[in-house]
Amino acid sequence: MTPKTAHLVGILGGMGPAATADFYARLIRHTPARRDQDHLRVAVWADPTVPDRVHAVLNGTAEPYPALLDGASRLRDLGVTIAAMPCNTAHVFLPRLVAETGLRFVDMIEATVASVVTAGGAPRTAGLLGTRGVLHSRLYQDRLSAAGIRPVEPDADTQGSVDAAISATKRGDLGAAREFAVEAVRRMARDSVDAVVLACTELPLVLPRGNSDLPRLVDPADELAIAVVAHCRG
Amino acid sequence: MTPKTAHLVGILGGMGPAATADFYARLIRHTPARRDQDHLRVAVWADPTVPDRVHAVLNGTAEPYPALLDGASRLRDLGVTIAAMPCNTAHVFLPRLVAETGLRFVDMIEATVASVVTAGGAPRTAGLLGTRGVLHSRLYQDRLSAAGIRPVEPDADTQGSVDAAISATKRGDLGAAREFAVEAVRRMARDSVDAVVLACTELPLVLPRGNSDLPRLVDPADELAIAVVAHCRG
Repeated sequence: MTPKTAHLVGILGGMGPAATADFYARLIRHTPARRDQDHLRVAVWADPTVPDRVHAVLNGTAEPYPALLDGASRLRDLGVTIAAMPCNTAHVFLPRLVAETGLRFVDMIEATVASVVTAGGAPRTAGLLGTRGVLHSRLYQDRLSAAGIRPVEPDADTQGSVDAAISATKRGDLGAAREFAVEAVRRMARDSVDAVVLACTELPLVLPRGNSDLPRLVDPADELAIAVVAHCRG
Repeated sequence: MTPKTAHLVGILGGMGPAATADFYARLIRHTPARRDQDHLRVAVWADPTVPDRVHAVLNGTAEPYPALLDGASRLRDLGVTIAAMPCNTAHVFLPRLVAETGLRFVDMIEATVASVVTAGGAPRTAGLLGTRGVLHSRLYQDRLSAAGIRPVEPDADTQGSVDAAISATKRGDLGAAREFAVEAVRRMARDSVDAVVLACTELPLVLPRGNSDLPRLVDPADELAIAVVAHCRG
């Protein structure tokens, strides 16, 4: 058995489901492989019935936590060696989840900030587009500031576009979602930020790639997938 | 709890990994939902290290079976109420898997043949493109014949293109895979079949959709996803 196949990657997902499927696909794409047997073993626990994360964070409750704990415990009991949770907002609960399950996670926020810092152009400012929950939690702001990058938060109109893009993605209306998401990025770009962090896993699902018309987009789910593969190969 | 969220869908995957991620994405797309909480709970066990299914079927061994049994048992123990295995060739082992785990599966071959029979145009012939293992097993031929549809098997050159398409998909060379897959469909189309069943889950990953130039393509993974959602919605 190679060190790679000895790993069992756990994905604590369902928040939302499409972002989870997309994350799993990215994990596969980022794994150098010639045949099935070169790929990572993966277990996914996707419970989309986890109570609303944003509502909980904004109201200071831990309503989603029992479902997250249940999922993480199941992954641990399956023998998962490294876990990933492709939902930015749910990362508010990550420290407690790690402490109470002993399951090792790659932290998506950490992987993303590390990538923003090291990527070309040495950005000085980074715009943040995410749920009201993730912004309220300051998950990204504090870590970006600590890394010497000024975080730029969306204004009320931009946040409205972000919220509309996320809801449209979740109900499967990808055309509308794309329009709202592009609008949000354009509004954020007016502040001439060096990069825009798509701090909700629903946003990269609908944004066109490689649009030179937009600022540099950072996709935390992609950074998480790259970091998980690196961990398993490392 | 609605009847829908009470279900836990199990995906026994990894054969190959990209087909598994794609199947999960289809399951989500076929689920009518307005928000995360309307989606199905899903557990995936994806072990790409399962020994080669085609080799086993062609040589009459059960080499992949222990890994399949392990995965199915894990899904059952997680509380899975309905399972799906998005790999055609592995369906050779399905009856034994069901008998030995008691886990309920939606049979992908059955769902596909049912769709071929009921879909518009009342096809009389169906071309089969799949691994040498799935063809050798006669999984599709016998059920299509029983349903009054004449199965058409690929000739040696067509099978060569199919094999090349599958290998290229598994090593992530999607451009080459697409060329080989289109070539295989065109060769099969020379027999003027009414439909072509893409009887390997790697093939639909690379074939262009809605190409009116090609005969009607039937995608078993899509039929499986539709059947699983229908089962869960009662």
